[in-house]
Amino acid sequence: MNKANLQPLKGFRDFYPDQMRFRNFLFGKMRQVSQLFGYEEYEGPTLEPIDIYTAKTDEELVKNQTFTLKDKNDNLLAMRPELTPTLARMVAAKQNELNFPLRWFSIGPRWRYEQPQKGRFREFWQWDLDLIGENSLKADAEVINIAAELLKSLGLTSSQVVIKINNRRLLETELEKVGLKKEQITLVYKIIDKKEKMKADEWEKYLKENIDQESAEKIKAILRKKDFGDFSELSKLFALLKKTEVADYVEFDPTIVRGLDYYTGTVFEARDVDGEFRTIIGGGRYDNLVSLFGGQKIFSVGFAAGDAVLEEVLRKFNLLPNLKENKKILVTVFDESLAEKSAELSQQLRKARLANEIYFTPEKLDKQIKYADKKGIRYVVILGPDEVKKNEVTIKDLSTGRQSTIALDKINKFFRL
Amino acid sequence: MNKANLQPLKGFRDFYPDQMRFRNFLFGKMRQVSQLFGYEEYEGPTLEPIDIYTAKTDEELVKNQTFTLKDKNDNLLAMRPELTPTLARMVAAKQNELNFPLRWFSIGPRWRYEQPQKGRFREFWQWDLDLIGENSLKADAEVINIAAELLKSLGLTSSQVVIKINNRRLLETELEKVGLKKEQITLVYKIIDKKEKMKADEWEKYLKENIDQESAEKIKAILRKKDFGDFSELSKLFALLKKTEVADYVEFDPTIVRGLDYYTGTVFEARDVDGEFRTIIGGGRYDNLVSLFGGQKIFSVGFAAGDAVLEEVLRKFNLLPNLKENKKILVTVFDESLAEKSAELSQQLRKARLANEIYFTPEKLDKQIKYADKKGIRYVVILGPDEVKKNEVTIKDLSTGRQSTIALDKINKFFRL
Repeated sequence: MNKANLQPLKGFRDFYPDQMRFRNFLFGKMRQVSQLFGYEEYEGPTLEPIDIYTAKTDEELVKNQTFTLKDKNDNLLAMRPELTPTLARMVAAKQNELNFPLRWFSIGPRWRYEQPQKGRFREFWQWDLDLIGENSLKADAEVINIAAELLKSLGLTSSQVVIKINNRRLLETELEKVGLKKEQITLVYKIIDKKEKMKADEWEKYLKENIDQESAEKIKAILRKKDFGDFSELSKLFALLKKTEVADYVEFDPTIVRGLDYYTGTVFEARDVDGEFRTIIGGGRYDNLVSLFGGQKIFSVGFAAGDAVLEEVLRKFNLLPNLKENKKILVTVFDESLAEKSAELSQQLRKARLANEIYFTPEKLDKQIKYADKKGIRYVVILGPDEVKKNEVTIKDLSTGRQSTIALDKINKFFRL
Repeated sequence: MNKANLQPLKGFRDFYPDQMRFRNFLFGKMRQVSQLFGYEEYEGPTLEPIDIYTAKTDEELVKNQTFTLKDKNDNLLAMRPELTPTLARMVAAKQNELNFPLRWFSIGPRWRYEQPQKGRFREFWQWDLDLIGENSLKADAEVINIAAELLKSLGLTSSQVVIKINNRRLLETELEKVGLKKEQITLVYKIIDKKEKMKADEWEKYLKENIDQESAEKIKAILRKKDFGDFSELSKLFALLKKTEVADYVEFDPTIVRGLDYYTGTVFEARDVDGEFRTIIGGGRYDNLVSLFGGQKIFSVGFAAGDAVLEEVLRKFNLLPNLKENKKILVTVFDESLAEKSAELSQQLRKARLANEIYFTPEKLDKQIKYADKKGIRYVVILGPDEVKKNEVTIKDLSTGRQSTIALDKINKFFRL
């Protein structure tokens, strides 16, 4: 095997313990916020038949950006680029047994075969949260509230990030007034969704290649609007959001449309205020997706957030937590004759639910302490001949350099404090 | 989309919240045991170039049981059937920076394209735990100790499960005495590994198709041995294990060899004593794997355990935990005029870190209580006109049927107790 093989595939990541600590921290926050609002965790398969995505996911995503493979019967399968179609399938499969509304969330891997760049990988983890079976705008407000609470819990303020909200029905009404037909409207959604991702003049060209000059100007005017007028779905939604703890995180933005085909009403995106990154959290209402799998119409609203963009946003605002500190204990080994005593102590600590690792080879204490220091282990426990004779133990706190010798049977209590 | 599409792919699973609770419980136990012994979590990519497996994983596994796909440059990629080659690659890539020994664990998905059956899926989750950079048998003893602690923490006793231990060097020595050559020995490892998976007469036939009659009889005699004689690696290992809290979970078994090609010394498998299931936990020492990726020889020992077999074993022994009980609170809505009061209360509870969900539509209280009951929600909070007038709240405990009315500002305290 050659040296090139030492790196993960392009767009894939190795998570060494340092990186994994951040990932677990982030997923922990997602879980915590979800559960506070009463959401339950679920998970689906990572492989699905490709046709569950062709139904309503973005065409470009399915055709060009999906990792696909064939099973032994020549059926085309996809490594899931997103979770929502799986969720819709799962809900449709048990719609007569489930107790609606469902408040569900999931955290797992997704794959998209696109060009890797900062905050964008081919393999990434996504937090999906959905409220299924509730038509009221209270549901839309709740999921947006949760999205904002996650940002807040990570230390992001409303002067750093904002959740931009729009409604596809409002946009549709306005595009109908321009005189666009159904198919044109779907196309214009795609074009609008690309606006933030392209340079201004490129986007302008793209728009005019697809839409006549007069309509294009009218569309641009719609996208410049500062308020939603008397559109009641949005006025009700903002009234509900105003009563939450995250009222300052939300604003109306007529350019938000979302790329996926299945959205039907409210759509929203969390972005950094400088617009440096792609969407941090994106979601909306998709009332017709579950019924595509057979059965009744089931009102649904939800969002997804990727791990990599969130990490970059936290880095930008200097909010990455310091996760170096490790509460672990190193039990040193004085010499071969005392190795068993150290092993017993390590076992005693574990029985008291105190995480610790034991040093295997009796080497100079300095070397063992240096090892602990490099690993970010705070406490080093020493059991030398003096300590053993007096039934004591010496504990060195590497964060302060302080050292104290205590009775062996007080050690659990020492670490409990 | 037709009805057939409502089910996940063959061998794949949907985890509804009920199933997910068990999965989180199981992964929680794995994390807890790993961390108590000082192990740190890591994770690798789910896709790797196929050649990292062809090097040393079992040939049948790679050729016939791996989900493969081609990237846009026609390179063959594999959805990882196991994690150890990825671990070896990651260690090789940073061998000059890492502080050995590494105590690492990981929990994530693996894929094997085999026939699904009880406890065996095409997509499953695996707990991998490895100790890298330590040659002492203390390392072998530690990982076996951890494997046994997991079984114990799940409630499995040593009369239900056993960890069978052998050593490839012992087996090799004995097979050399039979007169077998190097390539034959590798073949015999495969044959021995199949013993538990085949019927006795089929296996006997399989053995004799590959090995002459006389050698076959000698091999069978080796596999019947009750002890390891004066083989010091095993006597030292058992001496170390005897001093742990799990001494009664381990025994010598000459038939244990493990299917993967990379093992070099100690090999072990946890099994149910009735032999009903395939391996519950399997592992061993693999000192040459990291060096295949370039660089130095790095002593390594570890194991893996799949989620599905563990679940079946727990089911068999009636040890599946009752995870129905939910500590969540339902905040009911008395009528539209009081909806905002309920929303405020829900928010107040969340601020006190009390997980709760709110009922959206003001419907008959009975209906709301029934909903809570079906979802396994224990507490229902009622805020009617009387309560609001007196600044009180009524709490109904569905587990006892008891109902009490308390001052609104005492509610956090009520749930804290």
